[in-house]
Amino acid sequence: MYGFITIPNELIYDIINHPYFQRLRRIKQLGMTDFVYPGALHTRFHHALGSMHLMNESLINLRNKGVELSEAECNAALMAILLHDVGHAPFSHALENELVFGISHEEISLLIMHELNRQFGGALDLAISIFSGSYPRKFLHQLVSSQLDIDRLDYLNRDSFFTGVVEGRIGSDRIIKLLSVHQDELVVEEKGIYSIENFLSARRLMYWQVYIHKTTVGVEKMLIQIIRRVRALSGQLELPPELDFFINNTITRQMMERDANILKAFCYLDDYDILGAIKRWHHCHDPVLSRLCQMLLERRLFNVRLSEEKPGMHEIEMLRQRTIEQYGIEADLASHFVVAGTKSNSAYIGGGQQINLLTKSGKIEDIANAADLPNIKAMRKIVKKYYLCWPKNISLLA
Amino acid sequence: MYGFITIPNELIYDIINHPYFQRLRRIKQLGMTDFVYPGALHTRFHHALGSMHLMNESLINLRNKGVELSEAECNAALMAILLHDVGHAPFSHALENELVFGISHEEISLLIMHELNRQFGGALDLAISIFSGSYPRKFLHQLVSSQLDIDRLDYLNRDSFFTGVVEGRIGSDRIIKLLSVHQDELVVEEKGIYSIENFLSARRLMYWQVYIHKTTVGVEKMLIQIIRRVRALSGQLELPPELDFFINNTITRQMMERDANILKAFCYLDDYDILGAIKRWHHCHDPVLSRLCQMLLERRLFNVRLSEEKPGMHEIEMLRQRTIEQYGIEADLASHFVVAGTKSNSAYIGGGQQINLLTKSGKIEDIANAADLPNIKAMRKIVKKYYLCWPKNISLLA
Amino acid sequence: MYGFITIPNELIYDIINHPYFQRLRRIKQLGMTDFVYPGALHTRFHHALGSMHLMNESLINLRNKGVELSEAECNAALMAILLHDVGHAPFSHALENELVFGISHEEISLLIMHELNRQFGGALDLAISIFSGSYPRKFLHQLVSSQLDIDRLDYLNRDSFFTGVVEGRIGSDRIIKLLSVHQDELVVEEKGIYSIENFLSARRLMYWQVYIHKTTVGVEKMLIQIIRRVRALSGQLELPPELDFFINNTITRQMMERDANILKAFCYLDDYDILGAIKRWHHCHDPVLSRLCQMLLERRLFNVRLSEEKPGMHEIEMLRQRTIEQYGIEADLASHFVVAGTKSNSAYIGGGQQINLLTKSGKIEDIANAADLPNIKAMRKIVKKYYLCWPKNISLLA
Amino acid sequence: MYGFITIPNELIYDIINHPYFQRLRRIKQLGMTDFVYPGALHTRFHHALGSMHLMNESLINLRNKGVELSEAECNAALMAILLHDVGHAPFSHALENELVFGISHEEISLLIMHELNRQFGGALDLAISIFSGSYPRKFLHQLVSSQLDIDRLDYLNRDSFFTGVVEGRIGSDRIIKLLSVHQDELVVEEKGIYSIENFLSARRLMYWQVYIHKTTVGVEKMLIQIIRRVRALSGQLELPPELDFFINNTITRQMMERDANILKAFCYLDDYDILGAIKRWHHCHDPVLSRLCQMLLERRLFNVRLSEEKPGMHEIEMLRQRTIEQYGIEADLASHFVVAGTKSNSAYIGGGQQINLLTKSGKIEDIANAADLPNIKAMRKIVKKYYLCWPKNISLLA
Repeated sequence: MYGFITIPNELIYDIINHPYFQRLRRIKQLGMTDFVYPGALHTRFHHALGSMHLMNESLINLRNKGVELSEAECNAALMAILLHDVGHAPFSHALENELVFGISHEEISLLIMHELNRQFGGALDLAISIFSGSYPRKFLHQLVSSQLDIDRLDYLNRDSFFTGVVEGRIGSDRIIKLLSVHQDELVVEEKGIYSIENFLSARRLMYWQVYIHKTTVGVEKMLIQIIRRVRALSGQLELPPELDFFINNTITRQMMERDANILKAFCYLDDYDILGAIKRWHHCHDPVLSRLCQMLLERRLFNVRLSEEKPGMHEIEMLRQRTIEQYGIEADLASHFVVAGTKSNSAYIGGGQQINLLTKSGKIEDIANAADLPNIKAMRKIVKKYYLCWPKNISLLA
Repeated sequence: MYGFITIPNELIYDIINHPYFQRLRRIKQLGMTDFVYPGALHTRFHHALGSMHLMNESLINLRNKGVELSEAECNAALMAILLHDVGHAPFSHALENELVFGISHEEISLLIMHELNRQFGGALDLAISIFSGSYPRKFLHQLVSSQLDIDRLDYLNRDSFFTGVVEGRIGSDRIIKLLSVHQDELVVEEKGIYSIENFLSARRLMYWQVYIHKTTVGVEKMLIQIIRRVRALSGQLELPPELDFFINNTITRQMMERDANILKAFCYLDDYDILGAIKRWHHCHDPVLSRLCQMLLERRLFNVRLSEEKPGMHEIEMLRQRTIEQYGIEADLASHFVVAGTKSNSAYIGGGQQINLLTKSGKIEDIANAADLPNIKAMRKIVKKYYLCWPKNISLLA
Repeated sequence: MYGFITIPNELIYDIINHPYFQRLRRIKQLGMTDFVYPGALHTRFHHALGSMHLMNESLINLRNKGVELSEAECNAALMAILLHDVGHAPFSHALENELVFGISHEEISLLIMHELNRQFGGALDLAISIFSGSYPRKFLHQLVSSQLDIDRLDYLNRDSFFTGVVEGRIGSDRIIKLLSVHQDELVVEEKGIYSIENFLSARRLMYWQVYIHKTTVGVEKMLIQIIRRVRALSGQLELPPELDFFINNTITRQMMERDANILKAFCYLDDYDILGAIKRWHHCHDPVLSRLCQMLLERRLFNVRLSEEKPGMHEIEMLRQRTIEQYGIEADLASHFVVAGTKSNSAYIGGGQQINLLTKSGKIEDIANAADLPNIKAMRKIVKKYYLCWPKNISLLA
Repeated sequence: MYGFITIPNELIYDIINHPYFQRLRRIKQLGMTDFVYPGALHTRFHHALGSMHLMNESLINLRNKGVELSEAECNAALMAILLHDVGHAPFSHALENELVFGISHEEISLLIMHELNRQFGGALDLAISIFSGSYPRKFLHQLVSSQLDIDRLDYLNRDSFFTGVVEGRIGSDRIIKLLSVHQDELVVEEKGIYSIENFLSARRLMYWQVYIHKTTVGVEKMLIQIIRRVRALSGQLELPPELDFFINNTITRQMMERDANILKAFCYLDDYDILGAIKRWHHCHDPVLSRLCQMLLERRLFNVRLSEEKPGMHEIEMLRQRTIEQYGIEADLASHFVVAGTKSNSAYIGGGQQINLLTKSGKIEDIANAADLPNIKAMRKIVKKYYLCWPKNISLLA
């Protein structure tokens, strides 16, 4: 997407070649979204390198505007963005809460950064400080993670490109040129308000059109039910050792922090372990698991309804009853095939931090309060939707 | 942009080859915007053909959805969109009110369509009926001209492409697929609300970033002052005959309607007459005109300030005084160099008609009232800005 | 790449949804080329659908030129191109001769088409006749498979796009418009000679730049050595059942033709089986296999030398000796790490059939003989190169 | 095309803003090619800035390879490429030999560079030395003008983009990365041979498909006949003063070299003078001139035949006779409507200088002699074609 990307120095070269980072080649950026948008095969590896490239552009731009930045700060910022997503589980967000518990992918990224820091003799100290937000110059953290960070500038354009949803395209070049620093906080020059508005609007659109597209929700719920069923069948299936470990134990944040071997095992997992295993489970004797695996592999996906009202208990019950009858399974297993819950766009829109505008007169202002942009405030609203998934060959009609 | 465009039939082929239409090859879509965005060299000819192509796609799509459309209706809709902008003056909007008075470019388009209808023996009757809004099936007119018409679907993508302002890109393919007809009114399927929101946001951005970019405002005001000065020097300059006619007479709507020769003369004018003449006036003896022409040709453009407050009379007076002194011109001529006024986005945002949403339950609703989209209502607000233009070598400082 | 692709009818819809076809979603078009060009993640599924789209365009174009084509012929041609690559092994060409022996992927495609024909009650009879070349109207077969077939028109643009090697881009739209039929043979209109020359030149470039890029040769040889080592360790490793079958038996063409279950097992294999298994073998006790798997997973690839001269026996011997010493392995296992052989572009350039030109005077001529194009003849030359692969940490210096 | 282009320093900024350079905004890169490919509206201004950008990339690349380059050399090379085409006449190549005689556009560029050098106090000394080839480090001149120069790397991609002829696309990024310097001569690294072959093939294709497309030949011949007729009517027409000067005098190289005012007048001419004048001549009383102007403006273009054989005298005579009869013009004026001559691709392919390859063993070799590329030699052949133009409403049939 950006032509050739240059690797700035040897340390970063070594990090990229580290197995923990190379693993990202085997983790798709958008989980199972390629079931809906077949082009969405890009990986976390591409996103990480692309983000590093945009970070580099941003730092050059800030320096050109007179922001003083040491070589050490620049390198640290590049490493921080390069590694910001290194802690993702296989299939990215889809399995984020199914293999480890009580720990987010950002927290795992931080653990990995600490481990790399150990291996590279402290060379990531500053990167860690920036990533975790403890470095005094806040804007460096904000470039890595905020309402308007490099992460989003890269993934919106990338996901837009690979899904073919052109409306997600944003003017990242221009936004980067409009970034500035005021009292060590990241700000946007006032003339950039329409680009920011467009950025927020594009993000919202991608959210509804791609990130929580109902078919994607359905595939990901199917994947989750597979993992849960495997967990329930504990010990009865033959699994790859690392996956076995995470499925037959309940790994928590505390355990990961304490035991480096758990982190190492986690850093071994990728999409191929999961999908490779699904291909085997397909043949297993458990009627729930084999059926779910077959549905996934042959793309006989769930029907999905997204709505603003909670599905009625009666409705769910009826679907489960029909499933029990049709599949001849035990009553308590129907919940693997009829799944309900909520999705909200808060992960994308919310977050607390505001985007600051630097006005021509030198004042700092929350962009949501800027004249002429009542809609940005409106856009921050969190929208919650209820989903209901059930098998294609089961009828919802009364 | 769309690959090869097919000409659907011989009548349309003949219209495209008519000198009145071929003239559009010589009228830039965005007037003098290429002074700011050098790539913006595309013409009304490209826009007209592109719009016809999108209209064709839209009609195919509507037919696939079961909307009954006769061959005659389809052809008429294609002709109506092809000719919707044929009445533009040289440099499109820039000179819209300087050569003829009390008549808009759409009204001139209609006059030209009547004239072509005469030449083609009534073959444009239905096209005229659709264009003017008298045809009972309203959606055909709405495709040609409404808040969400084919015109905008083409020009946003086209202008975005040629200026390089990527945020103006919209998902016209998807929007076209979402258009539908309900009781002969154009509607958008409910699942298209985010695409429409993005379309409105893109339009707003293009408006501020391109259509009333301050440098463009400056160049267009300079062009207008040139024409006004030429008008004031009536008779003293040698002009091409057609241009002479419009400059040395005050042509009104009534005169154009009555006299086919005036229309014919108008249909002869293009960017080359204006810029060709400016190249000559550059050498003339009038100090105001020659200076303005030179400034334009050598790209020594006006300074421009866009603001929310009206420029003070004192400020304007001071700038004019300095101009008088520096250029040694007479007092009443300074207004050609220091120009103030207002610009609003009403031409782009306003219009009165609503965009209708067809909900899944079959109801029709104004998109501005749709749940989760308070910002669309906000976006419709008309924003007015004051501009002040003055020569580069005159200081604004007190 | 082509916007939305329309599925022409229900039979084709059913074929696309068949598990044998859905498997192509999990087979990368360019095997392990994403180790070199990270964007090259596209699959045989994309290529098959894209080819069907171009075939459809070609048939519409031929009909517009007056070539009579029945609905049945059109559908059959679409199915033939859709399924032309369905017989590919995991990682496409890389493992073509390692899992089954004496049978090409085209021959397996044909077996699968026969099987689908059985399942769909004879609906593929004509498609099979076209694919295998027995249908009397030769041009339909030539569209599927010849020196200038739809297959190539799609894969050159697709591979060029996803690798970022822009020189591989060809004018497939234009070439399709230039195709014609003369006495039931496919011909190109004379004015297309420069497009064809460019097509051949682009193909040659892609061949050297991508298809036999030396690093790709190295990764694929590593993959092959892994499979061969697994075969040698027969019975000592735990394998997924389908893969186990192909590794612990020597499956030949005759066996596949006779036993539908073998075909079924083959149609179950994809990239995930192979890479999933490699992730397990990585931990195995065999020092050769675990090392090769680790090298692949951590991207510590072979050094590769491509040259016009055969590597000397002495050179190979020296490299193997050093490998034995450094890795502490048995002498006869060094050949897994030091691999030599030849690559030629014949698969891409040669083939025997000529591209026929239809001159303005109605004559048919081999394009290689056309005036002004001596270079096309030159381009057909087969070029053979010798490769030598060895581990990164072993020195080649004397 | 390249995103934002940065202006490297103030001197270059001033040159870009000089009226002689701003004039290029009003000279189309491809003359009247937009009559055939409507998108071809790009100007010499765009090409000059794009070439400067690619030159900058090339210099950065050479420095990274260890080629020592002073700031002065870099700046001079940038100015040389920026100004390499500044001497073009209106409509670029179309009128190259109709307004001034015995002097090429490159020679006029050099005169203009000398004039600018005078105005900028000698700041272009080194740029002139590079442009004219007298600077000892030959590779700097070769970057500006040779078989593989920055000029071509820019215009092929640019013309391909704006005409939509995708086959003209070349890998300029990659070629730039492959350029190197050996003993102060420009060379290409050996691994670049296929990119060069593709570059030559693309250029050849653009030549036949665009640069001497038969319809373009026809429009340009029509334009030339208009200018020639105006010249013949010397004194009878009212013309803009600068154009009048070049039309009513025979300006030669010696006159331009001696008289700075002639150069100044030349630097005032652009497409608008010519097309603006044509719009007036359209009304004039000369039946030949008014008819030719009308044909051009209304796009009733010549029929054109390109062939390998010279058109027979009889054929030409017959066409002229029919024209005389049909138009009622005098016998000696028919040659303005029936025009014959030759076009060759030598301007694009030939030139004498070879492209040098730097082999891995450090040898320098003409690329045409490189193993495996007999076709490059073949491609250098000059091809000559005969054209014959005549009015659309005159029949060629016997």
